[in-house]
Amino acid sequence: MEFWFDFASNYSYLSVMRIRELAPEGVVWRPFLLGPIFKDAGWNNSPFVLQKDKGAYVWQDMPRQCAKYGLPWRQPSTFPRNSLLAARIGILCEAQPWMTDFCERTMLANFAEDRDIGGEQCMAEILTALGQDAAAILHAAQTDENKARLRERTEQAKARHIFGAPTFLVGDAMFWGNDRLDDALAMTLSSPQSSSGTAR
Amino acid sequence: MEFWFDFASNYSYLSVMRIRELAPEGVVWRPFLLGPIFKDAGWNNSPFVLQKDKGAYVWQDMPRQCAKYGLPWRQPSTFPRNSLLAARIGILCEAQPWMTDFCERTMLANFAEDRDIGGEQCMAEILTALGQDAAAILHAAQTDENKARLRERTEQAKARHIFGAPTFLVGDAMFWGNDRLDDALAMTLSSPQSSSGTAR
Repeated sequence: MEFWFDFASNYSYLSVMRIRELAPEGVVWRPFLLGPIFKDAGWNNSPFVLQKDKGAYVWQDMPRQCAKYGLPWRQPSTFPRNSLLAARIGILCEAQPWMTDFCERTMLANFAEDRDIGGEQCMAEILTALGQDAAAILHAAQTDENKARLRERTEQAKARHIFGAPTFLVGDAMFWGNDRLDDALAMTLSSPQSSSGTAR
Repeated sequence: MEFWFDFASNYSYLSVMRIRELAPEGVVWRPFLLGPIFKDAGWNNSPFVLQKDKGAYVWQDMPRQCAKYGLPWRQPSTFPRNSLLAARIGILCEAQPWMTDFCERTMLANFAEDRDIGGEQCMAEILTALGQDAAAILHAAQTDENKARLRERTEQAKARHIFGAPTFLVGDAMFWGNDRLDDALAMTLSSPQSSSGTAR
């Protein structure tokens, strides 16, 4: 199962935090940026900002969802946060054994600790806490080569017709939203040949 | 619990069909029209039509959801169908003991039988099958007084900040989407004073 998510997306937060227990292996991490996809739709911001009533609802829904899943929650004072740097680190490190830890800690920083995940300081602290060489990773994440990888990833998202996050791809089947994680996992288990990123 | 829905809304179909078993009593039916709400958002059609990738996803999601709930499914050849007449009948008859039957049969006509629920013939057949005086109801549904009731209902929806359907209101708490029906029912059961339409 490919797990496409944006570090700025609050519903992606729920799935990132649930996926270690639900799918301890077989998850192909696909960090990407929603911004360019929203821009193609004619939106200059998250629909949760542009659509006032929907946005207000989301901040009513999130604490209830977090309570249901036993997750901490603190409404970010800035939404959506800039997830560019986190996505660049994510795409650089997505095959590392500590990818799940990095994603969980970054999501918690954004949605439980109200920290600015867009800044180098927050990212460096998380990487250091994971025992990694933060300076080296921050440098590598911001090379032209890695920037191009993230742009290519977002183009892949468009080519796969992804319009929101989180999105789960099982072969050609798309599941959109944290509410579909269980359905996506059920399909993954019933069709093991589709369980890893065959559609790259 | 107030259950706000549009007969043209495919995710409302799922909730209409599930609600008899899940909540045999205590449901306050609130048929309304999404169109004027979408229009206020600047959209001249359903987002499932305007946003191509999301729309394509919905027709992939619906058969899976229907299979999960054991519901019949046939993608409507016209989407969204005109739900004005059905909504006028619904608001006229929402307190009748056969309201659940009317809603289920109208939804099945739209989403399992690909029938034009916007026409008088389909509505008359459903009403007659329910043992009702179809001609009298069709007449009463289209009086100025009843038309005004539906317009007022849609204004109430805007005042309650409803932006989509189905929407479940439990007191002041809003739950959006068929995926939140269980959560809304859980809150209804835990706060029985909020279980009927106190917020009219």
